[in-house]
Amino acid sequence: MTRPHPAPLANPLRALDDTRLPRIAGPSGMVIFGVTGDLARKKLLPAVYDLASRGLLPAGFTLIGFGRREWSKQDFEAYVKDAVTASARNDFNENVWNRLAEGMHFVTGAFDDDAAFDRLADLLAEMDATRGTGGNWAFYLSVPPEHFAGVINQLDRCGMAAQDENRWRRVIIEKPFGHDQASARELNAVVNTVFPENAVFRIDHYLGKETVQNIMALRFSNQMFEPVWNSHYIDHVQITMAEDIGLGGRAGYYDGIGAARDVIQNHLIQLLALVAMEEPTSFSPRRLKAEKLKVLRATTAVGPFEETTARGQYTAGWQGSERVVGLREEEGFDPNSTTETYAACTMQINSRRWAGVPFYLRTGKRLGRRVTEIALVFKRPPYQPFTEGQTDLLTNNAVVIRVQPDEGVLMRFGSKVPGSAFEVRDVNMDFSYSEAFTEQSPEAYERLILDALLDESSLFPTNDEVERSWEILDPVLEFWAAGGRPDEYQAGTWGPESADRMLRKDGREWRRP
Amino acid sequence: MTRPHPAPLANPLRALDDTRLPRIAGPSGMVIFGVTGDLARKKLLPAVYDLASRGLLPAGFTLIGFGRREWSKQDFEAYVKDAVTASARNDFNENVWNRLAEGMHFVTGAFDDDAAFDRLADLLAEMDATRGTGGNWAFYLSVPPEHFAGVINQLDRCGMAAQDENRWRRVIIEKPFGHDQASARELNAVVNTVFPENAVFRIDHYLGKETVQNIMALRFSNQMFEPVWNSHYIDHVQITMAEDIGLGGRAGYYDGIGAARDVIQNHLIQLLALVAMEEPTSFSPRRLKAEKLKVLRATTAVGPFEETTARGQYTAGWQGSERVVGLREEEGFDPNSTTETYAACTMQINSRRWAGVPFYLRTGKRLGRRVTEIALVFKRPPYQPFTEGQTDLLTNNAVVIRVQPDEGVLMRFGSKVPGSAFEVRDVNMDFSYSEAFTEQSPEAYERLILDALLDESSLFPTNDEVERSWEILDPVLEFWAAGGRPDEYQAGTWGPESADRMLRKDGREWRRP
Repeated sequence: MTRPHPAPLANPLRALDDTRLPRIAGPSGMVIFGVTGDLARKKLLPAVYDLASRGLLPAGFTLIGFGRREWSKQDFEAYVKDAVTASARNDFNENVWNRLAEGMHFVTGAFDDDAAFDRLADLLAEMDATRGTGGNWAFYLSVPPEHFAGVINQLDRCGMAAQDENRWRRVIIEKPFGHDQASARELNAVVNTVFPENAVFRIDHYLGKETVQNIMALRFSNQMFEPVWNSHYIDHVQITMAEDIGLGGRAGYYDGIGAARDVIQNHLIQLLALVAMEEPTSFSPRRLKAEKLKVLRATTAVGPFEETTARGQYTAGWQGSERVVGLREEEGFDPNSTTETYAACTMQINSRRWAGVPFYLRTGKRLGRRVTEIALVFKRPPYQPFTEGQTDLLTNNAVVIRVQPDEGVLMRFGSKVPGSAFEVRDVNMDFSYSEAFTEQSPEAYERLILDALLDESSLFPTNDEVERSWEILDPVLEFWAAGGRPDEYQAGTWGPESADRMLRKDGREWRRP
Repeated sequence: MTRPHPAPLANPLRALDDTRLPRIAGPSGMVIFGVTGDLARKKLLPAVYDLASRGLLPAGFTLIGFGRREWSKQDFEAYVKDAVTASARNDFNENVWNRLAEGMHFVTGAFDDDAAFDRLADLLAEMDATRGTGGNWAFYLSVPPEHFAGVINQLDRCGMAAQDENRWRRVIIEKPFGHDQASARELNAVVNTVFPENAVFRIDHYLGKETVQNIMALRFSNQMFEPVWNSHYIDHVQITMAEDIGLGGRAGYYDGIGAARDVIQNHLIQLLALVAMEEPTSFSPRRLKAEKLKVLRATTAVGPFEETTARGQYTAGWQGSERVVGLREEEGFDPNSTTETYAACTMQINSRRWAGVPFYLRTGKRLGRRVTEIALVFKRPPYQPFTEGQTDLLTNNAVVIRVQPDEGVLMRFGSKVPGSAFEVRDVNMDFSYSEAFTEQSPEAYERLILDALLDESSLFPTNDEVERSWEILDPVLEFWAAGGRPDEYQAGTWGPESADRMLRKDGREWRRP
């Protein structure tokens, strides 16, 4: 029985036929490689369920897991159900689940097992015939990068990567996209040999976050921000992703990667691009990516790096009331490793808009608080008609976009202190996403998986962006590689003393968010 | 016993010797004419007590009431004590009260009673000798304007207005300062013949409000507002003072004055001046007033007035759940009166900064809500890279300065609605004065009386400003005078239909604050 154009899963809201509601994916299916891994269990499978629950998947949507386990369809279903009940955003609904589970299959095999991939190809053809998936398949590579080439070549060998105007094939890949520009190029070459660039969806889950997308809404839907969004008024920009957790179980993976490769190269440089880019003429993927690439091409890491960068490794300390171990005591971490858990660097953007405005990027583990934010710190007014004492406690104005937690926007500006004297002091004006909207934010993966099925590639970095990001960061990484051990910082603080020095020499200081 | 330079009333905070604390008035006293009136009882006497309570009055401060009652010193003390316990902001403190009450005296007399004024002059001399008031006296004329000339001439006759480098004499007067430009000139001539302009303190109590002073702090201590504070980015400005109460007992006074003379000529035009003026080089009274006068000289009421103004009289209606009578049913109001209780007009400012940006001013009684605010409404962005539907619900950005109640600042801008679609909607970001500061706002009269004693005249309109404000408004008043009855509007609504028409013809609409 074929169901080529079935109605989507029920979503009563769709009755409104409101153009502001998200589009529903067309006939398609998805294959997840590495489906037994943490990412699939905690994020991808719950996101697929949540999309189904919201009525955004096509009725015949088919989900195929691929892995070495000897699982039956029922085993796979049970595994997915566990993942969904544990982590999905929407309540578990039997009807939604049953329709989704109908289309679940599992293929047992290793990534070098030709027979397994042949079986997978047969299964796709069968699904196309029986479930109306229409020949449209997304392959989600939730696997370590050393397996990228193997899986992609298998897909190619079995004809599963072949697309034409009637059926699409897409590959979704997860970072790391290489560990420097050269390796990123090699990886992109492997991927692009089989899948054309417009069929490659590189996940940077930060770009799926609401507040990150809100950067574009704030900048370009309003009249009040863009006029001051430039070097005439902005003194510098701080982009921070701070984590309070340590390496824990990830120590083995993390060693040899470090904070800069793990966070700055992708998340922070992407945030920089969105904050700093010129206005695109539209948000079509092509126009948006052209602007992001343009600003990245204008971005370089400023030296001398001994003064403009900082790196560190955390030592034992206190995280709130909890005593935590230092990096070298973490299980699985080589105590002689020079891998940094704190990284900060200074970027400049060679454009009329931003010349002279440093962008300070920092990230670290075991910092004082979990927070991701972008702070645009204004210059002081060129003149203030106040007398001495009246503005002593006033600092620079700031617009802060909080990405997580408590997504929102904060503005800091001077206001008169109530009283008979005239004194001006900083105040904060706060906008909280969760208080302002009754709508729930979808998870980043929900958004990104749907976008990949919809061929909406705006939020996925291109090969050019990835390679350029490495090109920006590589000089810093090379400098550090030659420089021995990172500085130390105590867990629960805001990084090594060298990080404070790095801003102090410019007469600035890091926010303590 | 003389106490020429006594220590001020105890204020433990002064020990900090902080320059941001308000200054203490030097040796001085104050005479209040009309001390048995509502204003004195509800505002002036409590303000004097509150200043004493805060340690801001000199130790020998002397308060003299003048009126027709046959009161002893004890009677006057009892009257002031009642007023203070009923309306002062600070808790009643016996010590503060006793020291203040020591310096209270009452002089019985009418405003044309030469002997009474001679007695007053003698009393001042006695106080100077016994209480260390140093010959420094402020005369507060809390009396109807028809008595201004009488009192001032009496002060002159008895030598009480005479000042030299060793002693100052100041007169504090309350609106109305005339009812048109010609009468304001006459009044100013009377006052300035006796008191030089730098000894005249005209009260516009709105200028004593914290948020009004905060306009200057917001504009000139910050870097983020001033760049957009002009016709490039601002579409129009709305200045609103809405009252929910009706005329009540004031109907007799109000008839023949009306909303425009009562509120627009003073409060709203003063707010306009502070919002629109260029930055002064300092906040010295001279520099500040020069800028205010400059922008007022550039301001005119735009015609044709049948389209650019609106006026109305309220009819019976509902104020919340309360049924209220119409204007013509108010006791003491002539039912044939053409006095308006709602007034709106359109101003233009002929300057590079504001040309083409209308300033809409409105005030009224029995409107939907009690609120005073200044709203700067931005232009739409010249281009938005969004597709149809994504910004349908987005309106213009706005910065709103709320003067009362809930003093603060509000910004309205577009933000992405959480969800998989890309939709931008208005959100409000709010800054509340009372939440941001633990410091209590002094009452406007507290601030203004202290300023008058300190010779700090920044917050008092000059004769030039008053006459120019009438010159701006007079053409509208003349047009209305020739136009018969005002339109009607139901109590509890936002004014007559003609007010909505007035903005609609410009493609705009009034805020519903």
